[in-house]
Parts: sequence; structure tokens; C-alpha cells
Amino acid sequence: MAEFFAAHRVILEQAIAACRARGYWSAYPETPSARFYGEDARPAAETAFKALLGKPFPLDQDGDAEPVGAEVSPYGFPLGITYPKRSVAALIGAAQRAGIAWAAASVEARAGLALEILARLNRDSFLMAHAIEHTTGQAFVMAFQAGGPHAQDRGLEAVAYAVDEMTRIPATARWEKPQGKGPPLLLAKTWRIVPRGIGLVIGCSTFPTWNGYPALFASLVTGNAVIVKPHPNAILPLALTVRTARAVLGEAGFDPDVVQLAPDSPEAPIAAELATHPAIGIVDYTGGPAFGRWLREHVRDAVLFTEEAGINPVVIAGAPDLRGMCANLAFSLSLYSGQMCTAPQNLFIPAEGVETDQGTLSFEAVASGIGEAIDSLLADPARAAAILGAIASPATLERIAAARRLGRIVRDSTPLPNAGQARTATPLLVAVEAEDDRAYLEERFGPIAFLIRCRNAEEALARAAASARAKGAITAGLYATDEAFIARAAEAFARAGVPLSVNLTGGIYVNQSAAFSDFHVTGLNPAGNACLTDSAFVANRFRVVAVRRPIAA
Amino acid sequence: MAEFFAAHRVILEQAIAACRARGYWSAYPETPSARFYGEDARPAAETAFKALLGKPFPLDQDGDAEPVGAEVSPYGFPLGITYPKRSVAALIGAAQRAGIAWAAASVEARAGLALEILARLNRDSFLMAHAIEHTTGQAFVMAFQAGGPHAQDRGLEAVAYAVDEMTRIPATARWEKPQGKGPPLLLAKTWRIVPRGIGLVIGCSTFPTWNGYPALFASLVTGNAVIVKPHPNAILPLALTVRTARAVLGEAGFDPDVVQLAPDSPEAPIAAELATHPAIGIVDYTGGPAFGRWLREHVRDAVLFTEEAGINPVVIAGAPDLRGMCANLAFSLSLYSGQMCTAPQNLFIPAEGVETDQGTLSFEAVASGIGEAIDSLLADPARAAAILGAIASPATLERIAAARRLGRIVRDSTPLPNAGQARTATPLLVAVEAEDDRAYLEERFGPIAFLIRCRNAEEALARAAASARAKGAITAGLYATDEAFIARAAEAFARAGVPLSVNLTGGIYVNQSAAFSDFHVTGLNPAGNACLTDSAFVANRFRVVAVRRPIAA
Repeated sequence: MAEFFAAHRVILEQAIAACRARGYWSAYPETPSARFYGEDARPAAETAFKALLGKPFPLDQDGDAEPVGAEVSPYGFPLGITYPKRSVAALIGAAQRAGIAWAAASVEARAGLALEILARLNRDSFLMAHAIEHTTGQAFVMAFQAGGPHAQDRGLEAVAYAVDEMTRIPATARWEKPQGKGPPLLLAKTWRIVPRGIGLVIGCSTFPTWNGYPALFASLVTGNAVIVKPHPNAILPLALTVRTARAVLGEAGFDPDVVQLAPDSPEAPIAAELATHPAIGIVDYTGGPAFGRWLREHVRDAVLFTEEAGINPVVIAGAPDLRGMCANLAFSLSLYSGQMCTAPQNLFIPAEGVETDQGTLSFEAVASGIGEAIDSLLADPARAAAILGAIASPATLERIAAARRLGRIVRDSTPLPNAGQARTATPLLVAVEAEDDRAYLEERFGPIAFLIRCRNAEEALARAAASARAKGAITAGLYATDEAFIARAAEAFARAGVPLSVNLTGGIYVNQSAAFSDFHVTGLNPAGNACLTDSAFVANRFRVVAVRRPIAA
Repeated sequence: MAEFFAAHRVILEQAIAACRARGYWSAYPETPSARFYGEDARPAAETAFKALLGKPFPLDQDGDAEPVGAEVSPYGFPLGITYPKRSVAALIGAAQRAGIAWAAASVEARAGLALEILARLNRDSFLMAHAIEHTTGQAFVMAFQAGGPHAQDRGLEAVAYAVDEMTRIPATARWEKPQGKGPPLLLAKTWRIVPRGIGLVIGCSTFPTWNGYPALFASLVTGNAVIVKPHPNAILPLALTVRTARAVLGEAGFDPDVVQLAPDSPEAPIAAELATHPAIGIVDYTGGPAFGRWLREHVRDAVLFTEEAGINPVVIAGAPDLRGMCANLAFSLSLYSGQMCTAPQNLFIPAEGVETDQGTLSFEAVASGIGEAIDSLLADPARAAAILGAIASPATLERIAAARRLGRIVRDSTPLPNAGQARTATPLLVAVEAEDDRAYLEERFGPIAFLIRCRNAEEALARAAASARAKGAITAGLYATDEAFIARAAEAFARAGVPLSVNLTGGIYVNQSAAFSDFHVTGLNPAGNACLTDSAFVANRFRVVAVRRPIAA
């Protein structure tokens, strides 16, 4: 264990410094290249992935119930993998048993082990890319990046925050209170970090690792045993993660049940029972707002961190670079077919026209410009496939069909040509009036965006900010030339609790959230109550207990 | 405002350093002496207190409802003070209006103002002592210390934690991501601290300032307007506090409604309506577990910090200094008539005898030793009055009467002789068998303690730790000579989430909790979900919102 910490100490120190400075920093190379990962990594991962298909997943975690698992790749084939299942009672019992020694381990021991898990997950990023691709539908390169190194960076960020927070508590102090002319009162005090309870991580179907790692590693490093409950459609990425964690735990002499996989099925879900079990001290949830609301209503004494849903607005008040704006928005709307919690949904555009570098353009002209930019971006089918990936859930296709009836179709959604068995859909653009807020004031997850005709820029901003505050938003975009307006927008979105990206063009997109720099979700609006990652995300996962004892002067 | 910060900067830096080191430190002199507070302070405060009696409290906060206030001194006279009352709607509206400019102020401006409020509260500590004495019943010196400088230290501690946490967020960063041979991606990022919402502080009847200041100052410094809802029996101490805060706010050009007093009456309580109002972002509560449970069930999206109740155990396994132990416990049980959330209630004593420096003593001998130490401590009526103070609530006398029937009376509770109109009661000691846990497994607030006959030290420890975990405890004491047993006890109480004091004799008592060193309440058992003060107590009172914008290389 000491070796793990020594091996990774420098990266931890760099990560802690990066969280403070918040400039660009990354620990794990995002390029799926042999240069970083070795010549063999890619072909070996393909072989390893194929070897997993059609059989029980090799996990050293015995079950006491029928195995589960019915994942189907959005690219059109069943994975055929089953996972050992433990009852809730067995999961809790095992976590409690394993958690005792884990809670007693030092911060350094736990951090070293977490960093070793992350290092091995990084080494295996190509295998994770296959697992992410064939559960979430992300195209391969995105699956590699977002599911591998970017998720690992987010995990490391949580480790850094947690270690930083725990090491601010001294282990001992000498308390010496002067007593005038008499001898001072003297106490020796010692403090220990005590975990809050078992951590439960409820995974999502689209970014199971990116959204799950901060919770997993934050709870783990602060001394809690962790139960990982994956979404039934995306078990494999978290099963690989848990397998790696258990291997490292076992090597270090800990009970592997410090981290357990808790797969379930849509027919027999266990998240509600787990989340309300009195032994659970922490619940982390990423997913839809219906179960999010249920958790907020029913989770009592455990601390609850949620990321639910948002309707991310973009206000187009002016366009200093019209082509750049349209290309940028086209990519943001197309990437992973809009199935990102950070993708824009609602584009608020003034009816009175938009000042651009190509003159004042009407609402219709801006709308068509964005539609044409999407057409152009997706013209080449291979490139389109690499950007769009596949649609994770059939329900998304139903949402697209329903959304067509909500306004005037500016650009229709179609399947990709030659996509074979893959479930694909290009972005749907629907123009609506500002007053038609029934159409756009709810999350319509997937490649669905609304072009909302507002009277003017002020109304666009007011509606965008109000929608974020009332319904939740994780990102907001603004295109504008008037600096006073930009300042007002920054103020309005700050009050609505949404980070704002201004005049993005080129290779930076509103949907991107970089570890060590961007706080993901503010916790200030219904999109979620927590942030990845800040002090509040880690500080309440452990508590501090003292012993004090008189000493002689 | 800048002057306030400059004037108090050094004390803030010292406070931040003290929170890290956790040795002894205090900003405000605890001795009620002219040396620190000036010759005039004491007589002037007496005059000022008398001038407040029998009339409307002078507060620059207009009401829209009938004034309230029916405080009666536990020393036997009605205060006759009424307070202006605002409806919930008026309170919320005023907080929202005043909160805008407050949220926009800098961290330094808010911290400087908070420190100025604390400095003025310190200057006025003698007046606060009268207010605390005649609402809570604390004797004058204790009222001065706990209600004045110790409470101010706890407030300063919260300011220090909050400032430390907020200043870890950089205001700006340049994010520069390398792009191989191409030019880097460049973003300018800025972050602003956004308060969570209006803070509600629900005060208690026994330590309204000591328990209220951490919440008040933590919410205030993090940018939230604050509504202070005092207990109907202890309005005056928080009214004085709010008056001081409003004066400083006004002088600095802020709307005084950044801090409002929200007094109510037992007949028309407003805490529930306030706590569940959607504009409230933070609820801090100190009080009984019945309303605590109600809050935990009904407060949804606001963050909730509670201190409720506990049954604090002491395990007597051995006594290296029997006289010292008995004297120490006698004081802990007598101080403020046991009306402290940190006072011991349950003394677990082995039936098989206790090894002491005076030989092995029976359960009965230890029990009588403690009883006699109380008699001796309280033999002089003047000294007894100064230790016991008065009983805050008549319900406590009823609890004493009921507790007499729960076992064998080892030492009966009596009123103090010559106490006049004051409501007084000395400690009641009741001996019970370990199996009679209906008697001692609930909080019996006041001067009531149980001597619990356990088979042996192991059973005593097991029952004590289990009671803390199941029912809550804020302190635990241990007397023992066997170091291995002490280590096991430290482990058991750590798991139960209770700080442990070992072999206290002389001038340090288990009920004392020192700012900047002792974490008060762990949040790990039903005694409360939060700690005064740690990072978790402050980090979630504000959120962070970003603006990011491309810049040229």
C-alpha cells in the first residue's frame, strides 16, 4: 500500500494544485494512440472485449440470486453478458464487514489505492472504450475519451479534493489554555476521520464512468465502502471498474467487498431499497428527474448528491462570427446525438433580427444557418457516425417523433444512411414561438433542439435565464457583441446557477466540461444539487471524532 | 467596508490558522473584567438592560403584524419586552430585496462586516450576559462567557472557515490546452461565489448565541441574507445580535434587512412555514428532536444543519484519582443544572467494582462518592447559585419529578435555599439496572443523571457506545486505568461518532467545547447532522458559477 502512495504521490500533488489554479491540466492522455498506450493496447482490447461477450462476467463476487444482465448494444447486438447478483441484505452485510478495516486505513493508504485503481483503469482505456461504445452508443473515440481518460481525470479530481480536505484536519494537537498565574490547562487531543457510512453510487446509462467516478472515488478515499449500482443498460463499464478496484484491494490485503457491483434489472430494480437502507450514509445519483425527485423525498439521513436533468439554453443576441457560431452550435447539437447532459436544447433568437458579421439576419436566416451547418457537418457518413454515435435508448426515437409535432420543423431528424443495425438519428430542429413554452420548458433528451422566436434579445435572455432557474440547466451559451449585454447575461445566468460560455467558435464547445477547471453542475437549480467537484462534494463524506486527555505540563 | 476588513484582517488570519492547528486560541477575552472591557462596561450594561425591560424592543425593523414577546426570567420576573413582528411573506420579500447587493459584495467586504459585528458584540458582552441570564437561566458569569466571548469565538470560527473555503476558488484563470503542433485552445474563465438562498437560523432556548452564531455568520459571510427565528423564551439575546448586525450593515451602506429578526410565539409558531418556504436555501436548527425530525422529513431542497439531542454517556471502568473524578463529574452534572447539550446523563458503572486509587469500590460506593461530591460542591448556597443558575423551563421540573420514579434515588433534587423567585433544582441521581434501558435511553433534559449498574466494564462500554449510536450523544467520558481498554473505548466511541474525554479531573470538564479546537457534534449519530465548525458546515452555503470565453493567444 505504501508503494502505491509513493508511486502516485506526485500526480496527487499536481492534481491538488490543479484544482486550486483551475487552468488546463490532465493526468491521463486523451488521445487513443499507441504513443501513449502502447502498440498492443488497441488490438488486445478488441480481443478482450470480444472474449467478454455471451458469457458470465468474470467477477470475484459471489451472488446469492439469479445473475442479471441484458445489455444490448445501440449498434445492434445483444452483449449476452450476465453479472452475479447479490441481494440488498448481502450487499449491505458485505460492505459493513469489509468497511471496518477500510475505515481504519490511513488517508495515504486509501489514496494510494485509489490512484492505483485509476492508473490501471487508464491502462485499460481501450477496453473501456469498447464497453462504453456498446452500452451508451458513444462513437469509439468519444467513448475512449469521455469514458476513459476524462472520467479518470474526474475521479482523480475527487481524490485530490478529498485528500486535501482530510489532511486539513490535524491528527493531534496540544491544547494549552493559560490560567493567569496558575499552571495552564493542558489537553492532548487526537482526531480521526470516520466515514459516514456505506456509499451508494447509482450510475446512468450515457456516461456511467464520467458521472460515476467522482462519487465512487470520493466515497472510497474518505473511508466508505462503496456499492456501485449501474444502470441496467450500462453495467459493463462499471463492472470493469469494480473488477479493477477489487483486484487492487485484494492485492493490498483489503477485503475486495470494499467495492461491490450491484447490478439489477428494469423488472426488479433495487436502487430505491438500497438508497433508503439505514446503513447507507451517502447516495450519489445521476439520472432522470423522476427518480431524482423520489430520492430527494425519501432519502432522509444519508447525504444525497444528484445530477438530474436540465434544459440548456443558448441566447443568440448577436454573432461576431456567424459561420463560426453556426458550425460550433452544429457540433454541440450533433455530438453523441445530443445525449449529453451538457448539450444545448433551447436556442433563444430575437425575432427583430440578429446583428452578425454578415449583416442583420432574420430569425429564419439564423435558424437555417444552424440547420445548414448541421447538414454540412454530417454530410460525410463516416464523419457523421463518428460524431453522432448511436441512440442509447429506443425511447429517444419516440421523443423525436413526438417533438416533430411541437412546432415548425426547420431541420428533420433522420437515421444515418448505411448505419446497419445501429440505432441512429441526426438532430431535429423545431422552431417555436416564445409563448409555446410547453414545448421547450421540459427536457427532451436526445437530438432535439428548439429555435425559440423571442421579441428581442432582452426577452431571449430573460426567458433563457428563467427557464434555467425554474427547470434546471447545466450549461448556457451566449452569442453577443454588446459588452453591456454580455455582462447582464453573466449576472442573470449566475443568479440562475448556470455556467455561461460566451461566443464559442472553433474547437471549444458549450457541452465540454474539463476536470480540474470546470465545475460541473452548480447545485443552484433543479439540474442537480451537487457539483463535480468542489469541497461540498467531499467534505460531508467523512466526519471527525476526537479523543482528548489531560497531560502533565 | 474596506476599513472593517483592514481593521480585522489580522484576527481573521489568526483564526484561520487556529482552525488548522486546533491548539488553544481565542479572540475574545472570557473574563468579565474591567481590565478587558473597561470600568464602565458592567454598570452601563446593567443600566442598559433595565432600560430595555417593560417596553417595545428598539429595533429598526418595522412589523406588519402584532408585536410578540412574553419572555419570563427563570429568576422570576417577566421581561415585559415586545418585538416587532413581520409576516413570513414580508420577511422573505425583504430578505430577497436586501440580498441582491449583499450577494454581489466581495468576500472581503462581507467578512469585514461580519468581523465588525462580532467586535461590537464583544464590546457589549456585559449587556448580553444580562440578556442570556434572564432568558436561559444561566448564572451571570457563565452567561457572560458562553453567551458572549465563547459564542463570539464560535461565530469567528465560522467566518474563518467560510472565508478559507471561498478564497480557495480562484476569481479567474487562463485555460490553455495544447493542440499538438497547432495553436492551443484558449479560454479566459472567471468564477463568482453565488449564495445558496436565504439562510434561516432557528434558535434554541438555552444557548441562543453560542449555538446560533456559527450558522448566522457562516450564512452571512457566504452571501446569504439571514432570517433569525429565536426561541420564544429567548428572543432578547438574538434581538440584541440582530440589532448590532443591522447597525453595521446600515453604516456600510447595505440594506439592514440582510439580517432580520423573526420572533414568534408558542401560539403561532412560524418556523415550519419559514423552513419549507422555497426561497429558503439553508436551514440551521438547534432544538429538540421532535421538530428536528419534522425538519429532516420536510425540508427538501434547502440544506439542513441540525443539533438535536443526545444522551451523553460516561463509562467508569477505573479511577486513577477517585476524588478528582467525583469532583469533576459533580461539576459537569451541576453546571447550569445539567441544561447543556454536552452534559453527561448516563454513568455506566460495573457491578463487579471499580479499581481506584483508594482500592476496589463497589457500584454503591462510586454512586455515593459522586452524590457526596455534588453535595460538597453545592454546600455553599452562593457558590451553588453561581454554578446551577436557574431552570429555563418549568417542563424540566416535571421531568425531574417523573425521573424520581425510574429507579432508586441516590441523591435527590431540591430547590436551592433562599433562591427567592428563581426556579432552581440540584442534580437528581437515580440508580438503575443496565436492563432498565427505558429509563435512560432517552434524553431527560435537565439535572437528571442515571447511575447504571452494568455487569462489568465491557458491558458498560458496549452499552454506552450503543446508546450513543442509537440515540445520539454529543460528548462521552471515560475513567479507566487499563490502556488497552482505553484504546478499545476510543475505537467504539469513534464508530458511534462521539468525541471522548478520558480521565478528566481538575479544571477541564466533559461539557466544555472550545472554539478553534473542539469539533462540536460529529454529525454521525442522531444528536445532530452537522458539526460546529468544519468545512462541511460552510462549503455548501454557497455555490460557484463560471463564465468562460475564448481569448486570442
